[in-house]
Amino acid sequence: MVTSRTAQPQSWRSAASIPVRPASDAQPARDTAIGRIPTTGSSPTVPDGDFRPKAFVGEVVPFEITAFRDGHDRIGVQVRLTSPGGDQSLHRLNPLDGGMDRWSALVSVLEQGVWRFRFEAFSDEFATWRHAADVKIAAGVDTALMREIGARLFTRGAEERSRPATEKRALTAAAASLRDDQVDDVAARGIVLDDEIAAMFWRRPLTALMTRGDEQELLVERERAGVGAWYEFFPRSEGATVLEDGSIRSGTFATATERLPAVAAMGFDVLYLPPIHPIGRTNRKGPNNSLDAGPADPGSPWAIGAADGGHDAVHPDLGTLADFRAFVQAARTHGVEVALDLALQASPDHPWVTEHPEWFTTLPDGSIAYAENPPKKYQDIYPINFDNDPAGIRAEVLRVVRHWIQQGVRIFRVDNPHTKPLQFWEWLIATVNAEEPDVVFLAEAFTRPAPLQGLAKAGFQQSYTYFTWRNEKAELEEFLGGLAHETADFLRPNLFVNTPDILTEFLQFGGRPAYVIRAAIAATAAPVYGVYAGYEHFENVARPGSEENIDNEKYEYKIRDWQGAVETGDSLAPFLTRLNEIRRGHPALRQLRNFSAHWSDDDSVLVYSKHLDAALSPEGVADTIIVVVNVDPHSVRETTVHLDTRIWGIAPGDAYEVEDLVTGARWTWTDHNYVRLDAFTQPVHILHVKEAR
Amino acid sequence: MVTSRTAQPQSWRSAASIPVRPASDAQPARDTAIGRIPTTGSSPTVPDGDFRPKAFVGEVVPFEITAFRDGHDRIGVQVRLTSPGGDQSLHRLNPLDGGMDRWSALVSVLEQGVWRFRFEAFSDEFATWRHAADVKIAAGVDTALMREIGARLFTRGAEERSRPATEKRALTAAAASLRDDQVDDVAARGIVLDDEIAAMFWRRPLTALMTRGDEQELLVERERAGVGAWYEFFPRSEGATVLEDGSIRSGTFATATERLPAVAAMGFDVLYLPPIHPIGRTNRKGPNNSLDAGPADPGSPWAIGAADGGHDAVHPDLGTLADFRAFVQAARTHGVEVALDLALQASPDHPWVTEHPEWFTTLPDGSIAYAENPPKKYQDIYPINFDNDPAGIRAEVLRVVRHWIQQGVRIFRVDNPHTKPLQFWEWLIATVNAEEPDVVFLAEAFTRPAPLQGLAKAGFQQSYTYFTWRNEKAELEEFLGGLAHETADFLRPNLFVNTPDILTEFLQFGGRPAYVIRAAIAATAAPVYGVYAGYEHFENVARPGSEENIDNEKYEYKIRDWQGAVETGDSLAPFLTRLNEIRRGHPALRQLRNFSAHWSDDDSVLVYSKHLDAALSPEGVADTIIVVVNVDPHSVRETTVHLDTRIWGIAPGDAYEVEDLVTGARWTWTDHNYVRLDAFTQPVHILHVKEAR
Repeated sequence: MVTSRTAQPQSWRSAASIPVRPASDAQPARDTAIGRIPTTGSSPTVPDGDFRPKAFVGEVVPFEITAFRDGHDRIGVQVRLTSPGGDQSLHRLNPLDGGMDRWSALVSVLEQGVWRFRFEAFSDEFATWRHAADVKIAAGVDTALMREIGARLFTRGAEERSRPATEKRALTAAAASLRDDQVDDVAARGIVLDDEIAAMFWRRPLTALMTRGDEQELLVERERAGVGAWYEFFPRSEGATVLEDGSIRSGTFATATERLPAVAAMGFDVLYLPPIHPIGRTNRKGPNNSLDAGPADPGSPWAIGAADGGHDAVHPDLGTLADFRAFVQAARTHGVEVALDLALQASPDHPWVTEHPEWFTTLPDGSIAYAENPPKKYQDIYPINFDNDPAGIRAEVLRVVRHWIQQGVRIFRVDNPHTKPLQFWEWLIATVNAEEPDVVFLAEAFTRPAPLQGLAKAGFQQSYTYFTWRNEKAELEEFLGGLAHETADFLRPNLFVNTPDILTEFLQFGGRPAYVIRAAIAATAAPVYGVYAGYEHFENVARPGSEENIDNEKYEYKIRDWQGAVETGDSLAPFLTRLNEIRRGHPALRQLRNFSAHWSDDDSVLVYSKHLDAALSPEGVADTIIVVVNVDPHSVRETTVHLDTRIWGIAPGDAYEVEDLVTGARWTWTDHNYVRLDAFTQPVHILHVKEAR
Repeated sequence: MVTSRTAQPQSWRSAASIPVRPASDAQPARDTAIGRIPTTGSSPTVPDGDFRPKAFVGEVVPFEITAFRDGHDRIGVQVRLTSPGGDQSLHRLNPLDGGMDRWSALVSVLEQGVWRFRFEAFSDEFATWRHAADVKIAAGVDTALMREIGARLFTRGAEERSRPATEKRALTAAAASLRDDQVDDVAARGIVLDDEIAAMFWRRPLTALMTRGDEQELLVERERAGVGAWYEFFPRSEGATVLEDGSIRSGTFATATERLPAVAAMGFDVLYLPPIHPIGRTNRKGPNNSLDAGPADPGSPWAIGAADGGHDAVHPDLGTLADFRAFVQAARTHGVEVALDLALQASPDHPWVTEHPEWFTTLPDGSIAYAENPPKKYQDIYPINFDNDPAGIRAEVLRVVRHWIQQGVRIFRVDNPHTKPLQFWEWLIATVNAEEPDVVFLAEAFTRPAPLQGLAKAGFQQSYTYFTWRNEKAELEEFLGGLAHETADFLRPNLFVNTPDILTEFLQFGGRPAYVIRAAIAATAAPVYGVYAGYEHFENVARPGSEENIDNEKYEYKIRDWQGAVETGDSLAPFLTRLNEIRRGHPALRQLRNFSAHWSDDDSVLVYSKHLDAALSPEGVADTIIVVVNVDPHSVRETTVHLDTRIWGIAPGDAYEVEDLVTGARWTWTDHNYVRLDAFTQPVHILHVKEAR
């Protein structure tokens, strides 16, 4: 397919586009739903049509549509983009392989805000003629007629006002040649097949039967909504110290600040803190989720609210609101953004319980209902009943969110959003983003696909997913491919490898290789991933019968020797640091939709690539990463991987150089390559293709 | 799931529904796109939302939607139907297996016209309580509380105005028992789990947070739009006779009338005639598509138009317009409906060419463009250029269609609709059906999926499909399953086994068994299928290099000895007759969406069932057909078939009787059954399940 690079404004990158003046939207009125050139199934889109599809600044968005016409004539398809600032541009779509009427253009959107786009399909008179003239002149059929038709088209093409003078001259000359009896049919067919002329008509086609679709919208959010390496720690653990009596003194924002340089040095972009609010006393949980907390047990941060305050307060053990602001500022100076937890529930000691009992469920016996999953009860938590006073609850939550925004927070990790009304989130996120478009909400909804996806459609910028439970090759291929190609218009996965609630069997029983494998996949398969502190130390002992760490940090302080573990070689921190360096150095890894699975002959060797065309890349250089990972942490695997190298512009069979970005090893690869992955020493190759196009 | 049968009006059948008075559509205004109970992905629906989904009178339509809510409380879902005549009814949806928030109700729609439907989702207070009370009373937790909550719910249920008095009394008594200290918790739990009480609340639920979706439409067309056995013959061949000089005298409508009793006796419902109009002389095609027709060669009926007239005329060899009307009437008396061909193209001799040259494409040399697929030309045909005078062409085609409607035609088989603008068909079908809702259009579009499906969405009542090219077990399973479950809301397949244009390799080389196999599948897998005359005689010799019969009837008369072949046992007519009898006797075969593929251990033994619940069946009797077919016409296959008998209400492992409807043999089957299918003697079992529920 012919492409061209032209000077481009700041708001987009693409391989074949021209800036244009805003066009009139006028089109002939019609009495049918179907246009002259029928189109169907455009994307980006969100199923059901109630919501705008999403992208992030720098994301490469596939604009796709199915378009066809009656008969044999050729069509062209383009998409007219209007950036939030009003730049308008036309991007031609290429037909996708397979001859199934699907068209695609890749555009990297660089400006935050609401974009508008509209597909336009048309009869492509040049392409129709070119095909017919080619085969007919070759067959000696209608040659004079085809030459005359071509000459007329070229003349019309030359008359187009916006066409550069050099092209006008070339087309006029070609028209004359087609009409020149001295030019034989062989030479005339050369003109028919001339690639430069085809490129002129590709850029500025002769269009007929122009059919414009409805204007649609694409919400482009800030880059951090779609790209980031997250780290989670409990601030009370960072700098916690054992006193002489054996009790533990809580860490504070001040002591946690001392950990920030190390988090930044590992290359993380976002630091997520579990709730920082006062913790309830009533029915406080003790170590390992026991019901008999001692007086020194700190309780779960998710049991929010006490005499010291509720969702707008800071736990006195951590410091003051000013200390929190200082912490946020210190993080920022290290290039790390702080994310807060938003957990809409209350301990029995929360001020809401006395001030707004109507926000909870009162039982026939007059008591307030605990959180429960019958017959199990969670007696340190009252769930909010959103139906009792929707307006009052909306106002209060908005007040709380605005309060933290005022303290410098722009990212919220929302606890269990699927236990609150979906329409509440739609309203809250729309309201907050109307005031503060930079605010990002991450949905922690470990639930069924419909509510999980519903939260993403409703506005959440990021979502936890089933990633932790997708460990085998076949299920990872399907899962990661689905994230990249089925739901990416509305759902952005945040691939946390572990959480305080999730220590999977794979990690419990996979040894240190399991931790390497999972971090490598999370960091390379999607542009957002996360690590909860302790992962570096391979903390893999579960509380019996649970999928959580024993001595869970939710209920107690954790004092870890970060530096000591690095020094003894017992820390994954150096590997995580390298992963984050690789992510920063390779823009292909900061995209979601460019994931392609490849074949390997071994059922445990997962292979995928991430490719970014030069025309779409921030520095104009193509970037291709191939990840080959042995997902069986107990084995050594030798196999052959089979790659579709055309994705990165290399012909099947051609050789090219790759560099392992972890070890620095270099190999010459083709489309079929031997690999040996020893889970115990090096379970993964992260390969950079040196000559991708 | 609890169901009930109540007296039903004439407009629908379903397993669990109540007629209701028209409800107010009022619902609280909201500032979110998402309702309190979120829903998504409802069906029936047509992708892109521009068109109404379709059904036919008697069709069982699955009304489905994904619905879920926050937290653990149970929800209910119902669909409110309004028939064209204004009957309103409520049908509760059952959750589908798998716990994925998908709900379904099957309703057989019995009234032609535009139905309206609206989904309603609500918090089901009884179901929520029932689950919690069950597990909590069993665990001895909150028993008094759960009993009191239940008593309040029962009291509210008893107060519902529309509830029958017996139910009111039962609920009041149950409420008293729940509050009675003399009733112990074991007995109280019995009330919680009482099926009759659950049924009362299933029929008339206590609803909260009622969330109504948008009203949608379903177009229900006459039964023949969705059910029918088609037969195709060339009237000029029926009764054609060889004269003494060896030339052939054309058959006429009068002689073709003599063939009608046999067509009717075979059980066909629709008789489709290729074009009956005058045939052009200029560049007329001779036998086997040759370019040198002799004066006695009749030409292709699709080269429409001559001095005798165009699309509104009858070929003089066939008789007069009055003869045609008599033929249509004669067919009707035999229970056969005549379908006409609508082929919008002209021979060079068509009156349009001189009267409306603007309806064609004029080339720079002043000539009119022939139909072509460069470099190939079809010089007996001028294609219409719909863009030159869209209004004039619309008016003329509408005039032609109305003309044939006036002659008694209500079914049109449209030739190559994908070579005409899709929006033209949308307009034509809408315009014609607004005047004559009974008119059916069948699209002959052997093209890519997008235009094929586009024609169906645009209004065509039936579509030719890729059926003839789907011959292996795996591809048939996928193909037939897709027709039944992916596109049935807008596309109705007409499974022609052959056409004058299509003699597949499977038929060419499969011998007589191939003809048996393909007819059996076509007649049982979908409610509309078709046979082109000559199939009975296993006419399987192709013109070399083509996928058409040699000595194709398109270009010459065919004189066949129908009765003689039956007498010598060389006719498939008796088998076709039996297939059509089976279709008439089994309403399950007159449905499209009830197709279920089952497993067999042999790669060539295809197994599927078609089931109709008693509640949805015209006579209130369940109907289940199992088809087991050896799709390899050259082999004998012995294997085991594995059936999901739950589909027809039989528990896995239970025995039941089946009868082979072709041979009359009876067997006792379970869910795993041995079969032996000898392609040369009996390649197919069509089994009726005797005890389906």
